[in-house]
Parts: sequence; structure tokens; C-alpha cells
Amino acid sequence: MEQPFESVIRSYAQAPLTEQATVIDELGGERTIQIACERPLTIYLNKREIVTLMTLGADPEALVVGYLKNQGFIERAEDLTAVQVDWDVESAAVVTRKEPAHLESMLEKRTVTSGCGQGTMFGDLMEKIANVELPVTPVKQSMIYSLLRALSQHNETYKNAGAVHACAVSDGDYIVSFVEDVGRHNAVDTLAGRLWLQGISPNGKIFYTTGRLTSEMVIKVAQMGISVLLSRSGVTQMGLALAREMGITLLARAKGRHFLIFHGRDTVDLDCLQEGKGVQGE
Amino acid sequence: MEQPFESVIRSYAQAPLTEQATVIDELGGERTIQIACERPLTIYLNKREIVTLMTLGADPEALVVGYLKNQGFIERAEDLTAVQVDWDVESAAVVTRKEPAHLESMLEKRTVTSGCGQGTMFGDLMEKIANVELPVTPVKQSMIYSLLRALSQHNETYKNAGAVHACAVSDGDYIVSFVEDVGRHNAVDTLAGRLWLQGISPNGKIFYTTGRLTSEMVIKVAQMGISVLLSRSGVTQMGLALAREMGITLLARAKGRHFLIFHGRDTVDLDCLQEGKGVQGE
Repeated sequence: MEQPFESVIRSYAQAPLTEQATVIDELGGERTIQIACERPLTIYLNKREIVTLMTLGADPEALVVGYLKNQGFIERAEDLTAVQVDWDVESAAVVTRKEPAHLESMLEKRTVTSGCGQGTMFGDLMEKIANVELPVTPVKQSMIYSLLRALSQHNETYKNAGAVHACAVSDGDYIVSFVEDVGRHNAVDTLAGRLWLQGISPNGKIFYTTGRLTSEMVIKVAQMGISVLLSRSGVTQMGLALAREMGITLLARAKGRHFLIFHGRDTVDLDCLQEGKGVQGE
Repeated sequence: MEQPFESVIRSYAQAPLTEQATVIDELGGERTIQIACERPLTIYLNKREIVTLMTLGADPEALVVGYLKNQGFIERAEDLTAVQVDWDVESAAVVTRKEPAHLESMLEKRTVTSGCGQGTMFGDLMEKIANVELPVTPVKQSMIYSLLRALSQHNETYKNAGAVHACAVSDGDYIVSFVEDVGRHNAVDTLAGRLWLQGISPNGKIFYTTGRLTSEMVIKVAQMGISVLLSRSGVTQMGLALAREMGITLLARAKGRHFLIFHGRDTVDLDCLQEGKGVQGE
């Protein structure tokens, strides 16, 4: 695991996450509501334009680092020198000690993925996945329930404005990190960036997302080194196939006291079941 | 408007849309459910690899055509010679009469958008939008309600397997076209491709999506020439800003008898309201 490195020069760019909008309801009545912000953020890696992400802007530095890491542009945390986001020019300047290898060839090869948008993966991510070694992480049903309860305290932007997805990393007892974004994949990348920057080990962690578990979501969580994936939504056939291939415990349709185990039954201890609390409190 | 052109050589590739999966519920009970398929489709334009989409595969030929049109790779329907999808090799071969202009420069400029994945737009789409001329389309509240009712008859894959988004085009009375995909943006592109291939005029049409109205969704519908956008979900600030700029009637949070008018109040006739049926039947 990389160590935490405070040495990285980073901005802490702030921007409003919601904005007021006046709407008319079906009865003709005027209402003032909050809507989620969405802003472009163009990433420059050593002055080379990589991509423009559309994001809520909750933690742009972590998003940029996580994106570049997940796309394979930055392989070692130590290589990172500075991450500076400036909303006035809607750009992020990332500086590394040495030029990323095969930068051009990576920019050549694109896979636009589904998610529920058309995500983008540069380079042969699928090949990288073949080398991912994931730890076996036992999960307790009671952990899942306490995580789902705890999450309801976090999703501020969703409660105010909707139109965002949430992702969280839990150690089984507490939520280690939580973020919302208009881009579901941005949220995953942001958490990947945070864990990496903070040198938090993925061992024993559970990854939660409100979004559907498509191939790209499963791949990105595997890249974080996390082997338990929990979703409020459903699973696609390729998301499941990848989880089986990589030995990821895949839990979905998790809401209230309900959830379905799509893969990794042996790693899940249905401890509440023994206490006959399986379906209480829904 | 382009005319319909049966002259295009096209495959009608079929693939299963759902697959059976055996899962364990929170009570330890085994269940067999359907999950949505997700498969890669690599697009070759005149033998040049453009991109790989991850899709459900409901209408791959229309998806490919709509994607290439919306990305600006194909500008005139007449230029299209053949669209052939082969699931055995997970690829789509598209042939045009002449090479697309500025192909290389377009592949250079990428914008990865939010949606709820990280979508991709090649080229300066925002610039193209500046030239979009949209008709003013009056909408009746009663139309919205009958569209929402009619939609419940269509979403087969969602009912069976979940994890997909739906998009539909309605003429106000009937659903002209409907599709589901694991990629929300794929669904939009597929309908764009169908309308284009069939030479159906966007005038007087309403576009419905189950997905959130982020900037990319609004841009793609505007590219279709449709000026009324209806969503079951919410709106982002940039989605709303673009709708205002382009004069798109933006209706969201549409469920049962409820909806919110985010933009275009003057084009919406709340006819049910006068009959005092505004909130019946919810």
C-alpha cells in the first residue's frame, strides 16, 4: 500500500453543491427548490489536456487524483507533486515527478462504458484487472444493516436536490469516506483518490454505491483493492461475471432490511437471521 | 429533415436481453432472478476503430448510427451505406460513402460527461449546440399523463431485471419509439438513430427518459431536434441552464400525476387542472 503523503501540494477548491430553482408544479403552483450543481472540470496532467469531467464539485482534488489513478495515468502515489483545482477556469492542474509511461497510447485506446451514462476507460483496463489480487473479506449481515442506517445521515445533496449518486467506504463499523456526485463514476473515483491520498488500506472495507453494478463499477472498486461491493440498485450480467472472476462479494438491492447476495455467499454471515431479525424494521 | 432510406444495408443482430442468476436473499433463501445483459460493442467506422460501447443490445444498429450521428461522425443520413453488427465478434462495422471530415481532430477532443456515468462527447458538441434551432412545441398536461400511463406497458427488461434505463419518443398521443439500455445515454442514442433511419420528424415530439437530466442528456435530445424533455428523475443546474439557453421545455420528477415544470411554463397547458383532475389517481 502507498503511504499517506502530505507532501503533495493541493488546493481545497470550494464550490456550491446546490442552486435554487423556481419551478411550477402540476397544480400551477410556484415552488422554489434546490437542484444539484454540475460543472466542467478539465484535467491537465503536466500541462497535457487529458479530459473534461462533469462533476458536482464536492471534492475535485480527490476526484482528479482518483480518476487519473483508476485510468492508469498515475501508478505510484509518490509520483504526485501537485493537484490544484481552480473553479474560475474550471480546470485542474496535476503535476507528477515523471511523465506517465505510454501516455499517448493510453489516450488512443478508449472504451466507452455503460454505467447509466457512457463512461470512459482509457487503456486496456480489462487487462489490468487480470492482475488484481483481492483479499477475502468476511461480511456480517448486521454490518450491512448498520451501514445502510448510517448512510441515511450522509446524503445531504441528494436530500436537498436529488439527481446525484452517493458512494461510501465503510470498515464494517463506521463510514470511512462518503461522497456524492452527479456522475456515479466520479463518486467512485473521488473515493479512490481519497483513500489513496490518505493511505487508507482497502483491506476489510465495504464499498457502497446507490448506483447499479455495471462492469465499470465492479472494475473500479476492484482497482481500489476492495472485495465487498454493496449497492442499493441492481446488477448487470457483466458486473456479476467480473465479480465472479475477481472473487468480489457482490451484494445488491440493499434497502431497509433487504438485500440479495449475487456472489460470495460463503463470505457473508447472516448473523441477524439466527436472531430472527432478518426482516424486521423494513 | 433527412428522408427515410431503406437503401442502407443493415444487420438485425439479436441477443438475449436478460440472463438468469441464482441469488441468496437476506433470509438465506435461494432465488432465481433475471438480470440485465451488458455486452461490449466496438464500433468501426470505415474500418477505423472509434469506440467500444457497453450495451444491453436491444437495437445495436440504431445505437451505433445514433451514437455516430450524435457525436458528429456522420452528418448526413444519405452518407450511410451499411451498418452491420455481429455479436460473435462484438463489433459493428459502419460504412459511409465518404470519409467523415475532421475525424482525427474529433477523436482528439474529448469531454467526459457526468450523466450518472462518465459519458463521452467527441468534438466541440457545445459549439454545435449553439446552432441548434428548436421548434416551440405546445404540451398538454393530459398528454403527459397519458404518456406516463402508456410507458408502464413498455419497460419489459426493467420489469424483469431492473438495472436499465428507458427512453421514449411520443407524438403526444402515442409512443413512437421506446428502448431500454444499461447505458442511459445508449438509450438516447438508439432513439436518435431510429428516428434518423426512419426519417421521423422531431416536430411535435416529446422525449421521455427515466434518467436524470444532466447537461449531456439535454444536449443529446436537442441534437435530435426535440424541444420537450420529460424525466421521471431530477435535473442538474447545467441541464436546466442548457434548456433555458436552447428554449427546451423541461419537465421532471414526473411520476403518477405529479411533475414539475423547470422551464417552458408558457408552452404547457395544465388542461387537467381546469377539470380539477390535477392530482387524481396518484
